[in-house]
Amino acid sequence: MKQHIFGIDVGGTSAKIGFFTSDGTLLDKWEMPTGSEAGARESLQLMADDLTRHLEKKSLTLSDLIGVGVDVPGPVLEDGSVKGFANLNWRHVNVKELFSELLGGVPVCVGNDANVAALGEMWKGAAAGCRSLVMVTLGTGVGGGVIIDQKIVTGAHGAGGEIGHMHVNHEETDRCGCGNTGCLEQYASATGLVRITKKRLAAENHPPSVLTLSKEMDAKVILDAAKKGDALALESMHTMCAYLGRALAAVASVADPEIFVIGGGVSRAGDILIETISRYYKEAAFFASRDIRICPALLGNDGGMYGAARMLLT
Amino acid sequence: MKQHIFGIDVGGTSAKIGFFTSDGTLLDKWEMPTGSEAGARESLQLMADDLTRHLEKKSLTLSDLIGVGVDVPGPVLEDGSVKGFANLNWRHVNVKELFSELLGGVPVCVGNDANVAALGEMWKGAAAGCRSLVMVTLGTGVGGGVIIDQKIVTGAHGAGGEIGHMHVNHEETDRCGCGNTGCLEQYASATGLVRITKKRLAAENHPPSVLTLSKEMDAKVILDAAKKGDALALESMHTMCAYLGRALAAVASVADPEIFVIGGGVSRAGDILIETISRYYKEAAFFASRDIRICPALLGNDGGMYGAARMLLT
Repeated sequence: MKQHIFGIDVGGTSAKIGFFTSDGTLLDKWEMPTGSEAGARESLQLMADDLTRHLEKKSLTLSDLIGVGVDVPGPVLEDGSVKGFANLNWRHVNVKELFSELLGGVPVCVGNDANVAALGEMWKGAAAGCRSLVMVTLGTGVGGGVIIDQKIVTGAHGAGGEIGHMHVNHEETDRCGCGNTGCLEQYASATGLVRITKKRLAAENHPPSVLTLSKEMDAKVILDAAKKGDALALESMHTMCAYLGRALAAVASVADPEIFVIGGGVSRAGDILIETISRYYKEAAFFASRDIRICPALLGNDGGMYGAARMLLT
Repeated sequence: MKQHIFGIDVGGTSAKIGFFTSDGTLLDKWEMPTGSEAGARESLQLMADDLTRHLEKKSLTLSDLIGVGVDVPGPVLEDGSVKGFANLNWRHVNVKELFSELLGGVPVCVGNDANVAALGEMWKGAAAGCRSLVMVTLGTGVGGGVIIDQKIVTGAHGAGGEIGHMHVNHEETDRCGCGNTGCLEQYASATGLVRITKKRLAAENHPPSVLTLSKEMDAKVILDAAKKGDALALESMHTMCAYLGRALAAVASVADPEIFVIGGGVSRAGDILIETISRYYKEAAFFASRDIRICPALLGNDGGMYGAARMLLT
C-alpha cells in the first residue's frame, strides 16, 4: 500500500520540502531555492528532479507515492491553476497539471499557502482533532485560512479566507497593497503594526515612549516594548488586537469554527497577544460562539509542508 | 424508486408544508397551525398525522417517502437537536429523532430556518445552479445562511451564518435582542430600520420628512418614502444598506460565495435596496470578490419548504 507523500511549501526565495508517511510522520525535510527569476516550469522541473533523487536514496520510485502537495503564495482556483503569485516570477499556470506531468503522472494537489497552513494545524498542530478552524497568519501581511468539515474553503474566486483584506475601518485614508483602504492587514500585520505606531509617534501629544529612540523599528521591537509596559507600544498593540479580535468575531458569525489559530512571526509575541485578541473577540462575538478558543499555532514554519501533504488525504 | 419528500417550514404560529418530487416539483402546499402553546411532541404528532392523511389521499404510505425535511426557528446542532426556539414553546429536543420516531422511522433532516431558506434558493431559486451562496433574510430580525459546496455551514455551535449578529458598530449603546450591542440586525432588519429612523426623527436638525406625520411607521412606510425621495427616509435606507453592504464584504472575505441572495419582507422594496447594498458592498469588498452578484430571493415565503425538502437530497 502506498504510504509516502511530499509536502512542499513554495515561498518567494525557497521551497520547504517535507517527506511524510500518511500518518503524518515527517521523515525528512530540507529546503531548496525557488529562484525568484525562474519561471514555473523551470522551478517545478528542478523540484521534480530533487524529489526523484530523494526517492532513489530511499530505494523508492515516483509510483510509490500517494502524491505530492504544493502550497503557493497566490490564489488557487478549483482546477489547480493559479492566477498570480506574490514574490514569485511564475505566470498564470496550472501548477497541478504541470507538476503532475513533470512527475510522470503522480497525483498533485495545490493550495494557497495561508489555507494550507490551516490544514497543517488541523492535521498535526494546534487544531489537531478539530473538523473546523480558522487560522490567521500574522506576518508581513495577514493571511487567512478557513477549514470547514476538514476541507479548505477555497471560495468561488480563490478568495476564501482572505481575512487580511476584510474591510474593518472605512475612515482609513492610507491604501492597502490590494488597492483598498481599511483592510485588517493595515493594522494586524507586522507592517501594519509598525505603520500605526509610526503614525502615533508622528502625532502631537503622544505618550512618552522608548520607541522614539528606536532606529530600526519592527513588530518585535514594538511588542517587546509593550511587554515592558511602554504606553505607546501598548496602545499600538491594543489597536492591532482590537481590529483583529473584532474581525475574528465577524468571521465566527459566518463560519462558527471550533477553534481559531494564530500563526506567523508576529504571533511569537506569545501570551500577551493571544490574551488581548481574546478579550476584544469576546466583547464582539455572538454568545453561541463566544467561547471559541484562540490558540497560537504549533507548527511554525513547517505548517505549510504538513498542510500541503495533508491535501492528498481526502 | 422513492421520489417523494415533504418539506416543512416551522414558524411561531404556523407550519408551511410542501409535498415535493425529488426533482423539485411542488405538488401541493398547505399550512397548519403550530400552536405556540403546544410542546414539540404534540405539535410534531399533529404534523405526522397530517402527512400520513395526505399520503393516504395520494394512495401512498410513509414507506414511499425519501424523507421529511424540517426547518425550525432556532440553532440546530449536527445531531438534529435544537437548543432553543424563537417564538415557539418547544424545549430542548432532538427534532430529528423524535419526528422520525413519530413517522415510523422515515428519514428526517432538520435545519435552522435561515440556513434552510438559503438551500431552497440554491435548489430552485435565485441561486439555482450555484454551489455556494450566502443568503440574508431581512425580516423582524436578520437571518443568515451560508452554503459552501452545496452544504449548509451549520457551525460548531449552531451559529454558522448568524450574520444578523455580526458586530458592525462598537459605538452603539442600544442593546440587540441577543444581549450584545452593535449587531447588524440593529440596522438592517425591519425593526432596525424603524429604530434608526425614529432616532433620527428625535434628533435636532433632521431634514424635513413626511415621516414626521406617519402614525404607524414600519419598514415599508420608510422605504416607500425613500423611493419618493424623502431625505430622512433616504438617509435611513443608506445607513441600513451601508451596514449591510459592508457586512457582506466581510462575509465574502471569509466565504467568497458565487452569489448573495437577499430575502425577507424588507427585500420587497426591490431594486433601490439591492442597488444601494451593492454600491456599499463594492466599495468595501476585496477585488477578487467584488463582482459577486447580489440578487433578490425568488421563492418568497416558500423558500423554507423548498430548502427543507432539499436537505434529503445529499
